[in-house]
Amino acid sequence: MLIDGKSYRSIWLDENDNGIIRVIDQEKLPFVFGIRELSSVEDVYNAIREMTVRGAPLIGAAGAFGMYLATLEITSRTDIHDHLSNAARYLSSCRPTAVNLSAAVNKVFRKIENITGREEVSHTALNAALGICEDEVENCRKIGEHGLKIIEEISAAKQGAPVNILTHCNAGWLACIDWGTATAPVYLAHSMGIPVHVWVDETRPRNQGSRLTAWELGKQGVPYTLISDNTGGHLMQKGMVDIVLVGSDRTSASGDVANKIGTYLKALAAKDNKIPFYAALPTSSIDLTVHDGLNEIPVEERDPSEVTSVTGMSEGKLVSVTICPLDAKAGNWGFDITPARLITGLITEKGVCRAKESEIKKLFSDKSN
Amino acid sequence: MLIDGKSYRSIWLDENDNGIIRVIDQEKLPFVFGIRELSSVEDVYNAIREMTVRGAPLIGAAGAFGMYLATLEITSRTDIHDHLSNAARYLSSCRPTAVNLSAAVNKVFRKIENITGREEVSHTALNAALGICEDEVENCRKIGEHGLKIIEEISAAKQGAPVNILTHCNAGWLACIDWGTATAPVYLAHSMGIPVHVWVDETRPRNQGSRLTAWELGKQGVPYTLISDNTGGHLMQKGMVDIVLVGSDRTSASGDVANKIGTYLKALAAKDNKIPFYAALPTSSIDLTVHDGLNEIPVEERDPSEVTSVTGMSEGKLVSVTICPLDAKAGNWGFDITPARLITGLITEKGVCRAKESEIKKLFSDKSN
Repeated sequence: MLIDGKSYRSIWLDENDNGIIRVIDQEKLPFVFGIRELSSVEDVYNAIREMTVRGAPLIGAAGAFGMYLATLEITSRTDIHDHLSNAARYLSSCRPTAVNLSAAVNKVFRKIENITGREEVSHTALNAALGICEDEVENCRKIGEHGLKIIEEISAAKQGAPVNILTHCNAGWLACIDWGTATAPVYLAHSMGIPVHVWVDETRPRNQGSRLTAWELGKQGVPYTLISDNTGGHLMQKGMVDIVLVGSDRTSASGDVANKIGTYLKALAAKDNKIPFYAALPTSSIDLTVHDGLNEIPVEERDPSEVTSVTGMSEGKLVSVTICPLDAKAGNWGFDITPARLITGLITEKGVCRAKESEIKKLFSDKSN
Repeated sequence: MLIDGKSYRSIWLDENDNGIIRVIDQEKLPFVFGIRELSSVEDVYNAIREMTVRGAPLIGAAGAFGMYLATLEITSRTDIHDHLSNAARYLSSCRPTAVNLSAAVNKVFRKIENITGREEVSHTALNAALGICEDEVENCRKIGEHGLKIIEEISAAKQGAPVNILTHCNAGWLACIDWGTATAPVYLAHSMGIPVHVWVDETRPRNQGSRLTAWELGKQGVPYTLISDNTGGHLMQKGMVDIVLVGSDRTSASGDVANKIGTYLKALAAKDNKIPFYAALPTSSIDLTVHDGLNEIPVEERDPSEVTSVTGMSEGKLVSVTICPLDAKAGNWGFDITPARLITGLITEKGVCRAKESEIKKLFSDKSN
């Protein structure tokens, strides 16, 4: 997508040095636009852990590139299979909720685990990682096309008045290499001249909404209004939201969606006010081994300091401020599970379906897509 | 309540100078414990507007004292009735959602509007304001006693394991002169040795939870954990919340509750997880003229800068940081309406009742309380 007129992805291979992966540093946005170099497995692990890269599809791509970088760390004395299998385990352990990370890492690992030549293993891993990136971008584009139809219908029903879309966290192109999941239909609609307006949830504790989604939308010229996470229910009660569009870090076979903490509350409000609630996701985020999202998907607990403090700009500097008594104890769960019964539909690269096991199964059986 | 062993209220008349009202400065808590002097109607208006004093019962008391200060501004050439009626209108206009403010202001005004002597009018206004304070404190104490029974029942059912209470915003003693509304049952239970633990919602955009409720509970030694506003739903899904207890800024005759923005989302989650949801409120917050809370209670819109920035401590200083692109547009609604159908009951000084018009009516007809 565009940043000040120049086209970017959120992760790419350095054009001059095949040993370097470049990523947009999402920790410092929107205050500083910086690009970080990743040149080792450790670099990738830390970038994911510190959320320099975040978002389910993007951490999958980063993990895949991490496996490629692992192949560059093979020395003549390395036991290749052990080395790669350790790297795969290490990278997958970094964040437990999103299924994309371990899926992408394992996809690369399976392609290289039986290769013995150092050059061939690197070459294969790189191609696999690049392939995963291209697939994710293409998936997001298709999600955009399928989601666009839903926005078009609402726009038609509103006779061209702006379609008010509420989103939570950042399921935008920063999270997804390009296009985004939840944002792809919005960007497409906007580019086609359909009037849209996005309510952007701040998304505490890490403020991915106020920092990243607001920045993304602004850079593409999409009208938006930032709100606190507490506000969406009121807006829905007052008829100021036409559709809720979110991403998914892991989707169960039955259609439960694990997404950023607070998503469940917005789904409840949407249901209570008869507002359509859609999760937009590549089918790679669907974990067919999970049937009961609430009891089977692990929810990551993060550092309490993310809750007790907020980072932002003050007088040109990035500053972290404490927002509670200095001795306050805090709890920090990263995700919650939105049960399928609250979800109007899933927008995938293979089309839109209801959040029901039977319909989700069809996505995987229909090979024509 | 206690602050470092010393007993305080959140508003009081200076013991040496009858022309000065003192309040705890809630804007700077928990970082700085400061006391502010209010010695004019303008001072009171600004203190309410800037939320140095906030919370429905407290702004009622402040408004009442404001009417007393208005009587001290009467000069020999003042048209007393006009002067007082202007002051009443001015003070009431300061914050539109809470009913306590205009109710308390008008209560004092009605007692003094037909008095012509300057000294008598001041004396009567002061006594009325002091009486309102005592009534509020006594109401909170009774709310505590009625709510205690609910906590005791849960504690008994849990065989003494800590009762997990989730609260939103600050309906504590700071908001209420003493005891608090939602916190009164908690303080009473804690003082009686019943194990309780409070989940404190941060309560963006102004962080009354992380700044005030966390501070209050800490000072009384009540165990608590600070969470982001997004987290309560997840905790309820996981069985980690036994009861939700909130305050009310205005309650309709039918039991709808206007409270801090985001309350409605917690009520939805409580309903979805079959967790009791109570609003604790003095009957003075019940507006019998309002039957449909959602359509009849005005919801205050505040400055967008409260959403685009966060204030906290950094290296010993109070600093405000911007948390979004500098050109971001933001919306800031202060309250939402929780429909009666989501509320298990109202805890008032006259007892606990269901959030139903017929039961609420009984509170007012039964003079025995």
